[in-house]
Amino acid sequence: MPSSRDSSTGATTEADGSYPKLVERFRRLARFRDVEAILYWDRAVMMPPGAGEARAAQLTALDGARHEMLAGEETGALIEAAGAHHDLGPWETANLREMRRAHRHATAIDAALSAALVTAGARCEMVWREARAKRDFETVRAEFTGLLGLVREAALAKAAALGLDPYDALLDAHDPGLGRATIDPLFDELCDFLPALLERVLARQAGDKGVPTPSGPIPTERQRALGLRMMDVMGVDPAWARLDISAHPFCGGTPEDIRITTRFDERDFASGLFAVVHEAGHALYERGLPESWRDQPVGAACGMSVHESQSLLMEMMVGRSRAFARFAAPVFREVLGVAGPAWQADALYRAFTRIKTGLVRVEADEVSYPLHVILRYQLEAAMVEGALEAADLPGAWNEGMERLLGRVPGHDGEGCLQDIHWYQGAFGYFPAYAIGAVLAAQFFAAAIRADPEIEAAIGRGDLTRLHAWLARNVRAKASLPTPRDLVIEATGKPLDATDLRRHLEARYLDGAA
Amino acid sequence: MPSSRDSSTGATTEADGSYPKLVERFRRLARFRDVEAILYWDRAVMMPPGAGEARAAQLTALDGARHEMLAGEETGALIEAAGAHHDLGPWETANLREMRRAHRHATAIDAALSAALVTAGARCEMVWREARAKRDFETVRAEFTGLLGLVREAALAKAAALGLDPYDALLDAHDPGLGRATIDPLFDELCDFLPALLERVLARQAGDKGVPTPSGPIPTERQRALGLRMMDVMGVDPAWARLDISAHPFCGGTPEDIRITTRFDERDFASGLFAVVHEAGHALYERGLPESWRDQPVGAACGMSVHESQSLLMEMMVGRSRAFARFAAPVFREVLGVAGPAWQADALYRAFTRIKTGLVRVEADEVSYPLHVILRYQLEAAMVEGALEAADLPGAWNEGMERLLGRVPGHDGEGCLQDIHWYQGAFGYFPAYAIGAVLAAQFFAAAIRADPEIEAAIGRGDLTRLHAWLARNVRAKASLPTPRDLVIEATGKPLDATDLRRHLEARYLDGAA
Repeated sequence: MPSSRDSSTGATTEADGSYPKLVERFRRLARFRDVEAILYWDRAVMMPPGAGEARAAQLTALDGARHEMLAGEETGALIEAAGAHHDLGPWETANLREMRRAHRHATAIDAALSAALVTAGARCEMVWREARAKRDFETVRAEFTGLLGLVREAALAKAAALGLDPYDALLDAHDPGLGRATIDPLFDELCDFLPALLERVLARQAGDKGVPTPSGPIPTERQRALGLRMMDVMGVDPAWARLDISAHPFCGGTPEDIRITTRFDERDFASGLFAVVHEAGHALYERGLPESWRDQPVGAACGMSVHESQSLLMEMMVGRSRAFARFAAPVFREVLGVAGPAWQADALYRAFTRIKTGLVRVEADEVSYPLHVILRYQLEAAMVEGALEAADLPGAWNEGMERLLGRVPGHDGEGCLQDIHWYQGAFGYFPAYAIGAVLAAQFFAAAIRADPEIEAAIGRGDLTRLHAWLARNVRAKASLPTPRDLVIEATGKPLDATDLRRHLEARYLDGAA
Repeated sequence: MPSSRDSSTGATTEADGSYPKLVERFRRLARFRDVEAILYWDRAVMMPPGAGEARAAQLTALDGARHEMLAGEETGALIEAAGAHHDLGPWETANLREMRRAHRHATAIDAALSAALVTAGARCEMVWREARAKRDFETVRAEFTGLLGLVREAALAKAAALGLDPYDALLDAHDPGLGRATIDPLFDELCDFLPALLERVLARQAGDKGVPTPSGPIPTERQRALGLRMMDVMGVDPAWARLDISAHPFCGGTPEDIRITTRFDERDFASGLFAVVHEAGHALYERGLPESWRDQPVGAACGMSVHESQSLLMEMMVGRSRAFARFAAPVFREVLGVAGPAWQADALYRAFTRIKTGLVRVEADEVSYPLHVILRYQLEAAMVEGALEAADLPGAWNEGMERLLGRVPGHDGEGCLQDIHWYQGAFGYFPAYAIGAVLAAQFFAAAIRADPEIEAAIGRGDLTRLHAWLARNVRAKASLPTPRDLVIEATGKPLDATDLRRHLEARYLDGAA
């Protein structure tokens, strides 16, 4: 069979041309997805408050067009036809695998349900903002109950189509192959050692009372300048990235057009700063995905757990390390215009590794962080399976916080309203945060094993050696391997909490790293 | 025939359901158009410079989807079927007329040409930015030559489909029924009296040398505060509108989500301010279009000349009037933190009505403004018809400036590179600016005749009476009448330069208004 290959897309020109047609179709889909990414960013950062309904209608229309293209019978037929060819290379084969997965997820729910989810998610998010500001779950209860009903319907439909449990079917959309069978033993292990470790660290840090602590107020404009400087240090370039402010920090946009957001607290500069460092980790992953596969499913991130590993690696392994504090201390003093003993490397390192058994996940220290996530995992699985109703969420949240972290929120704003995810209709995403924490330690340990000079370079503010390892072992592979295989290829072993445990013990009990 | 009516869309449920199907189809089209509006704004205001190619690809994909929906055979068949019904009300009938017009324009050019225009326009605009900064037409010549070739191809295709001359076919997309047969005599009349008037005014103002003139520097932040204050005075609400900065001021976004942009010059606060007032006029028109026809073609603005009339009415008739200066002077002093004789009402009025025979259209006074536009009209008609090549544009521009306004640009940046339109592929739009100036005077005169209290109210910063007349006679009608009929209904006569001439003579020779 005559076959020629276009190196940029791997398009083959078999007799029926099914694979090149798919490549073209998914390229168009990618452009719609990119448009949606900009609109979501705009809604969170720029949009006037009165435009919520109109934006929801726009997003619903775009999602409808994407769903039509993705779920259409013609797409299914092309995938079947292309699957019959045996001359596809490894990237093309993986691309077809990812196309099939996307098609299956799309066909599992019909266009009406898909549209209803987008519309209800957009509306619920707008009401959530108000509820969060008022610290009152009741404000969003009705919208959220309706949205959860649609999420359950979608989970059941996907479960039937994919042959999975309903919650596993939602997990599969974010992390193929990392279902409850993987998560449960991993999270059990975390629950085994983290609470005891947390207690030991708290006891140890109780003696730190006299250590000078950096304090504010530090004007927002200086914090913003520091955020931009840190982006520069990390290799995030204003030629393709912006830094803005939003209620919930995120990394949005597209690889050519990264949109990092944070929030600034004049009394706590570290909060806004580490949000930037965290989101910059996401940005570097997106930017480092192979350009020649940019518009194809195989060129996308290898699941959300790996994505979170890349942000947590930058925030926790790099940003809060002793080495980085050495480099960062004089930069902070210069950019923030501060001075004194609290702004020396050792004091900063202590501040950045201080355990705060707080109530808010995005401000949690790295020891208690996975426990925040595990609470959300337990609650969202119960909500999807029907074991927990929307109306009972605040009570279940408070009970779980007490059980896992020993604290009870004073109000819903620092309780079940703190995260945006559920109120957008995003269920099955949370586990990725804790798996990401495990993977961040696992990847970082492997990188150091491969190149022990990485840590010394970090102490000079030089991340190029670390970038080189990540580029080769994570970024450039995109979705060529599955998440499970990527971890094994990069670290020599399957997903495993040993490196996280070692890292936490070394940093928080031995005072190293 | 059983028929029920949905009051919000006028949907009728005839046996074949063709009209409701069209309503649904155009609603989806409207959402795509709205998305594109946000992306264009984002590109001009927010987008990092490296994302130009990616954004072009996104806009091309969206335009492709719109073109498919609009030009599709099914759309044509539905329009034919709906046209056979005789139970449509006046709004529905006008809606169908506008649907047919949009369909004809879309089918006139094929999908490939439509996509090529969007891609080439987006790329050329990015290169134009560089060329403008370098003040060098050569930088953009190659891109612009290619784009002009595509524009000519589209004009020829539309000419054949619509039975019009090529340039008239482009004009028709912006202003149905206002072709060269209307424009030529109107512009001839303007060319008859404006240059002589300009000379008389210049001679008269030569004696103003001693008048105190407001001068800067005035910090950008204060100018921005004044812009927001003026938006408030005009009734543009931050609940549905933003004010940002871009190289070329514009009003973008959608009626629920207005995006006004301006630019600030510390030495010339009036430039940035009047751009805001001008764009706010556009915003008020968009916002005042009937909400129940929001997503339908009949609910759109009644052509671009009427649109420009609404912005120029606010800028020239209101913003630069003696009455408004009385109200504005203390506001300016307070918000800008300025004082002295130059900031009294009379001095401000003189400053805002000072003739500057400059080179830049958007900074031109209202006497010479139409002449700037007429130059562009002559040049773009010649370019579309093939009488002027892209490479010869700078020479023809400079020659025309000398002929019409007696001045020659020092470089292309203040010459043929000053406006974005052509470099985006927008030809046939410019005449709307001069027709808009004529209409602004004609509408304002009619409003004053109908309610003589309007002027005194403006002197108190109260625009509600003016808004009431505009809402009733222009905004609420949307595209129910054609532009030609709208003008007659609102002012009692066809488009006519008499009111503009009277206004200019009264303000600039008699010192009134």
